[in-house]
Amino acid sequence: MKARVIVMPKQAVLDPQGNAVRDALHHLGLDAASVVRVGKFMEIDLADAGDRPALETKLHALCRDLLSNPVIEDYRLELGE
Amino acid sequence: MKARVIVMPKQAVLDPQGNAVRDALHHLGLDAASVVRVGKFMEIDLADAGDRPALETKLHALCRDLLSNPVIEDYRLELGE
Repeated sequence: MKARVIVMPKQAVLDPQGNAVRDALHHLGLDAASVVRVGKFMEIDLADAGDRPALETKLHALCRDLLSNPVIEDYRLELGE
Repeated sequence: MKARVIVMPKQAVLDPQGNAVRDALHHLGLDAASVVRVGKFMEIDLADAGDRPALETKLHALCRDLLSNPVIEDYRLELGE
């Protein structure tokens, strides 16, 4: 089973990395880029996952406690097959 | 229109950040995590995108030249509505 975790800066938080990428895109001719936000993408392979609801609860707890900083970041968890 | 770009280290490339996350997940009780890989996620808002095929070609070129390092990274481009 695979889990995907996407961690992005909250909308209200400045994203200087995203702004730098946006400016670089403009510089290279993509003027249509209005907002760019840069976050992290984590792909977790889960061997012998067992009880899926319990696993999902555990993963949400780990996303909050380890993989994201809830003060400035939001996360999205996708649990695949 | 929104574009999403996911940049991941190639399978053959070591990912020490991913290994560190995997070890931390084990430490926090998620022994099922066998492989973790960490990459970047970019969300690009495109205003007035116009010609979609041309835009997609341009975005692929920018993913190759600016947003990823093709020697050690693969990218995935998803062009939404």
